[in-house]
Amino acid sequence: MHVETDTATNWLRMAARDAREASGQLARMPAAARNAALVAAAAALRRHAPAIAEANAADLAAFDAGRGTPAFRDRLALTPARIAAMAQGLDDIAALPDPLGRVLADWTRPNGLRIQRIATPIGVIGMIYESRPNVGADAAGLCLKSGNAVILRGGSESFRSARAIHAALLEGLQQGGVPAAAIAIPPETDRAYVGAMLGGAGLIDLIIPRGGKSLVQRVQAEARVPVLAHAEGLCHTYVHAAADPAMARRVLANAKMRRTGVCGATETLLIDAAVAPSLLPLLTADLRALGCDFRADARARAICPELPAAAAGDFDMEWLDAVLSVAVVDGVAAALAHIHRHGSEHTDAIITEDAAAAAQFLAGVDSAVALWNASTQFCDGGEFGFGAEIGIATGRIHARGPVGLEQLTTFRYVLTGSGQVRP
Amino acid sequence: MHVETDTATNWLRMAARDAREASGQLARMPAAARNAALVAAAAALRRHAPAIAEANAADLAAFDAGRGTPAFRDRLALTPARIAAMAQGLDDIAALPDPLGRVLADWTRPNGLRIQRIATPIGVIGMIYESRPNVGADAAGLCLKSGNAVILRGGSESFRSARAIHAALLEGLQQGGVPAAAIAIPPETDRAYVGAMLGGAGLIDLIIPRGGKSLVQRVQAEARVPVLAHAEGLCHTYVHAAADPAMARRVLANAKMRRTGVCGATETLLIDAAVAPSLLPLLTADLRALGCDFRADARARAICPELPAAAAGDFDMEWLDAVLSVAVVDGVAAALAHIHRHGSEHTDAIITEDAAAAAQFLAGVDSAVALWNASTQFCDGGEFGFGAEIGIATGRIHARGPVGLEQLTTFRYVLTGSGQVRP
Repeated sequence: MHVETDTATNWLRMAARDAREASGQLARMPAAARNAALVAAAAALRRHAPAIAEANAADLAAFDAGRGTPAFRDRLALTPARIAAMAQGLDDIAALPDPLGRVLADWTRPNGLRIQRIATPIGVIGMIYESRPNVGADAAGLCLKSGNAVILRGGSESFRSARAIHAALLEGLQQGGVPAAAIAIPPETDRAYVGAMLGGAGLIDLIIPRGGKSLVQRVQAEARVPVLAHAEGLCHTYVHAAADPAMARRVLANAKMRRTGVCGATETLLIDAAVAPSLLPLLTADLRALGCDFRADARARAICPELPAAAAGDFDMEWLDAVLSVAVVDGVAAALAHIHRHGSEHTDAIITEDAAAAAQFLAGVDSAVALWNASTQFCDGGEFGFGAEIGIATGRIHARGPVGLEQLTTFRYVLTGSGQVRP
Repeated sequence: MHVETDTATNWLRMAARDAREASGQLARMPAAARNAALVAAAAALRRHAPAIAEANAADLAAFDAGRGTPAFRDRLALTPARIAAMAQGLDDIAALPDPLGRVLADWTRPNGLRIQRIATPIGVIGMIYESRPNVGADAAGLCLKSGNAVILRGGSESFRSARAIHAALLEGLQQGGVPAAAIAIPPETDRAYVGAMLGGAGLIDLIIPRGGKSLVQRVQAEARVPVLAHAEGLCHTYVHAAADPAMARRVLANAKMRRTGVCGATETLLIDAAVAPSLLPLLTADLRALGCDFRADARARAICPELPAAAAGDFDMEWLDAVLSVAVVDGVAAALAHIHRHGSEHTDAIITEDAAAAAQFLAGVDSAVALWNASTQFCDGGEFGFGAEIGIATGRIHARGPVGLEQLTTFRYVLTGSGQVRP
């Protein structure tokens, strides 16, 4: 089926116009009412769990008729536990502090004019995601809590699941007084709807893509709307000459192997030449015991000849797997130069007991998240205390790093005077 | 002359790569060094004033050979006073507080991990502007002070002036230790360079267009890079039933007529039906005495029959001239509905002595700047106390309203641990 571009564009125009109106209403709802609606939506998800499971079974049946990897099928599947977790996620978001109305700054000018900078919703957010149907519910919860309306475009393979989740959410939210237009999904799976969203300048205020590299790249290349991208995380852990060996072993094992598929996982180990002879064998033995493979430069292989040699380009790989690139470097400046050349300005860590070296590293690296003596896997909204996250931003404006409720707001100025005129 | 797209793209790739390197160096320079370089650049502008004036005279001669408005010619002209003001602007920026390194947030997690959010440069900023050559110097000052490198693309008609200003700035900045690549201008006037900048994803972090509507719209439509747009300001002043009449007269006259060509100028007067019969004749008489013309709805003309009738679409006009649209409304909700329908979410004011009405208005309007009992012309970085501004942002993410040094920064997180690993 091919949907005319006009059909998709017209749908978006109506949906976005109504969504903007709904965002205004959401923004004026007291926090307690927004929270109650989220709790009602969670209850509706639980109530409609059988219908959601049935829709998901149909998605899975269609998937099984095609070709796809087991990993993809697993992401697509909604078990009863996953549906329960989705509902719990909304309850958790309801319990978080209200991100709206925060006074971010407040000052008074010499002429008596008081200026306040106040957190407000962004407006209409377009969420474009793949495979995991629960992302839609999480995103809806975060957007609505922060006063934003959201247009959800999941993958076509999960369309039945997305529609069932949407229907349940809508029922609960409307019981809580949220206008139906605050959460929309396109009526069909055609990619023309993605195109309409990406071209929706003036209709959608922000697009958040969440998925694989090709999805994010397409969104970045085609969007005429601001994008909060969630792209590559080529993260480094740099073990400095003054590292505590036990800490380095513990932290690196976690940074690489706790979960290998997350964007905050370490992909490259940099280790100072001064400690590599004693420490690198221990670090690699620890990781090998956890199932990790290696791609090592010549200096590392001179110390640990059993490590496979790195090929050209290996230091530019975001493995997202149980593979670690390894290079021996000479001090902080060399580590920074390597990160500068190969890194993605996402998350990078130094392990050292030397405060001056740490300061040099932290000032010299321009990553969204720079760590001293901690695992790169802490790059996560939950670990930051945000309660929930919609992704990890890899752009340089509006927000960097974990995107929680605060980052889903913008601000406006309210000026209070007593008849001031400008000279 | 037609420049091959490849030539422009290759130039940009080199310039942006070197600019990114320069931004890193700028960010690591102490504030005192960045300020000293700005002061040296100001001195160089004064020293090279004759060369700048000569280049400007050549631009003006070429302009006179073509067709152009006197207003455009005036914007293009650099008098000795304007060159002096340009230099003073850099001295003023040098004296402002350092926007870098500010700790925007600082908290410690239950596991002992300390998280700091720290202001950092955005990186490489592309400034695309028209006619006024001094915009280049102002933008360069603000960008460099905030640790950003800048690629300046002025109008082709001011190319000789821009090149002379650039040469002077560069001499001063380099004396102050700033790398030359921190401030670049394309080597030719061809529009291919604008195209290369707009397509410079990954090379330029933020494009700031400053100029007329068509320039801003082209940039917004074509950019593959985040844009901090400076678009329409269709600003309203709403005179509520409980307005102090003398204040309403004083504030409205300023909001409309102080300067009519600025984006914060009021374009539409909304006045409550309850006070229109007594107050509208006074307000319009004040403005008429200042040279203002009107476009009034039927209810306003029933009170002041001498006002010209508004045509269809007049309430959607950003006049930027001595013309005021006038409508009579029934209370705050009606005023909000009018602003919602016709406004540009830029700057809107209510004049009232009724705090509840003001609160309803300020909460209901979603403008970047909402004012109570003050002139809309206060929408200005200088009036906000920012010291200087690069423009007024009209988008909804990263920054809204006046853009000063703070808004030219982004942030990153620095996490300090003691060996924490993620569970």
